[in-house]
Amino acid sequence: MESPAGVAATPRALPYYVAFSQLLGLTAVATTGAWLGLYRGGIAWEGALQFNVHPLCMVIGLIFLQGAALLVYRVFRNETKRTTKVLHGLLHVFAFIIALVGLVAVFDYHRGKGYADLYSLHSWCGILTFVLYFVQWLVGFSFFLFPGASFSLRSRYRPQHIFFGATIFLLAVGTALLGLKEALLFKLGAKYSTFEPEGVLGNVLGLLLAGFGVTVLYILTRTDWKRPPQAEEQALSMDFKTLTEGDSPGSQ
Amino acid sequence: MESPAGVAATPRALPYYVAFSQLLGLTAVATTGAWLGLYRGGIAWEGALQFNVHPLCMVIGLIFLQGAALLVYRVFRNETKRTTKVLHGLLHVFAFIIALVGLVAVFDYHRGKGYADLYSLHSWCGILTFVLYFVQWLVGFSFFLFPGASFSLRSRYRPQHIFFGATIFLLAVGTALLGLKEALLFKLGAKYSTFEPEGVLGNVLGLLLAGFGVTVLYILTRTDWKRPPQAEEQALSMDFKTLTEGDSPGSQ
Repeated sequence: MESPAGVAATPRALPYYVAFSQLLGLTAVATTGAWLGLYRGGIAWEGALQFNVHPLCMVIGLIFLQGAALLVYRVFRNETKRTTKVLHGLLHVFAFIIALVGLVAVFDYHRGKGYADLYSLHSWCGILTFVLYFVQWLVGFSFFLFPGASFSLRSRYRPQHIFFGATIFLLAVGTALLGLKEALLFKLGAKYSTFEPEGVLGNVLGLLLAGFGVTVLYILTRTDWKRPPQAEEQALSMDFKTLTEGDSPGSQ
Repeated sequence: MESPAGVAATPRALPYYVAFSQLLGLTAVATTGAWLGLYRGGIAWEGALQFNVHPLCMVIGLIFLQGAALLVYRVFRNETKRTTKVLHGLLHVFAFIIALVGLVAVFDYHRGKGYADLYSLHSWCGILTFVLYFVQWLVGFSFFLFPGASFSLRSRYRPQHIFFGATIFLLAVGTALLGLKEALLFKLGAKYSTFEPEGVLGNVLGLLLAGFGVTVLYILTRTDWKRPPQAEEQALSMDFKTLTEGDSPGSQ
C-alpha cells in the first residue's frame, strides 16, 4: 500500500495502539514513582533509600525504554532504515545505562546492609535477563550497525534478533513482577491479605506492567503492521543480493 | 516443500525442539511434585495438604497441557485439519478441568483456614488468566469447531486467536512464577537469603517454567515451522472462498 507520493501509508489503528501502549507505560512509571514516594520514603543514592533507585531505574530502563525501542520500526515507517536503526540502538543504550544504574544501586545497598546477593528467583531471572540484553545488544550491533556483516548473514540473523528481543522484554516484565511481589511481601507480610493500600497499589502496578508488555507484544506481532521495505531499500537489497552478496545497503 | 508422495515434509530441527520443550515441561511437573513431596508434606484433598493440590494442578493444566495444546498444529502436520483441531480443543478441555480442580482446592483451603481470597498480585493475575482462558476456549470453539462461522469470519479471527492463545499461556507462566515466589517467601522468610535447599529448588523450578514458556513460544513463532495447508484444504478453501464465501471446509 503506497500513497500517490510514494510514502507508505500508516495502518489506521496503529497510532491508537501505540498511543495506548505509551500511556500504559508512562502510567506504570508514574505509579512506580508514586509507590516509592508514598510508601517507601522516596529516593536517594545514600542510605536506606538507595534501594528505591533499583525499581524505578529498572521500570524506566528495561521496561518503558526497552518497549519503546522495540516499537521504533512500527512508528517510524518513512524514515530511512539507517535512521530508524540508529534510534533503535540508541534507545537500547539509554535503557541499558539506566538499568545498570538500577543494578549498581541494589548491589551497593545490599553491600551496605550486609545482605546476601542473588539468592531469590527475582535476582536469578534479573541477572539472566540483563546478561541476555547485553549480549543481544552486542550481537545486534555487530550484525546490523557495524559495517561488515553480509546481507545474507543479516537476513538469517534478523528473525532470531526479533524473537530474542521480544523474549528478553517479556522476561524483564516478568522479573519486575517478581521483584514487586518480593518487595510487597517483605514489608507487608500477613498485612498483604488485609487489602492494605500499598498492597492494592502494588497489584495495580503489576497489572499495568503486564498490560504494557501485552500491548507492545500485540503491536510487534501484527504482521500487517510491520514496517514495509521502502522503494530504494528494496532496489538496493535486490542489487546487493543478486550481484555482490557481500555487503548491505544499511552499512553505507 | 512437499515430498513426492504429497506429504508435507517436517522441518529437520522441529522434532528436536518439540522433544526439548516436552522434556523441560515434564521436568517442571516432576520438580513441582518433588518440591511438594520433599518440603511441603505431599498432597491430600483434606486438611493442610489441600493447598498443595493447587500448584501441582496449575502446572500440569495451565502450563504443561496448555503448552502441549499450542504445539499440536506444529506436531501433527499430516493429519486432517479437523482431527488436529479436535485434539487441540480436547487438550485445552483437559487443561481447563485440571486447572479448575487446582482453583477449587485453593479456595476451599482458604475457606477452611479463614484466609482472605484474591488479595495478592498472584491471585489477580491468576483469575484474569483463568477467565481469559475460558473465554478464549468458548470463542475458539464457536468460531472453529461449531459449524456455522463463515470462512471469512474464521480467517479474520484466526490471528487474534493465535495471539491471545500465546499471551494467555505466557500469563499462566508468569502467574506460576509469582505464586512460587509467594509460597517460598511465606514459608522461608529471611531464611530464603541463606540459600536454603527449598529456596534453591524453587528457583530452579522457576527457571524450568520460564524455559518451557520460551521454548514453546520459539516453536510457535518460527514462521517456517507453521503447519502448511494441505492440498485438499487449499482446494476446498479456494472453492469456498471464491464461490460461496458462506461456509468452511472445516465444518463439514
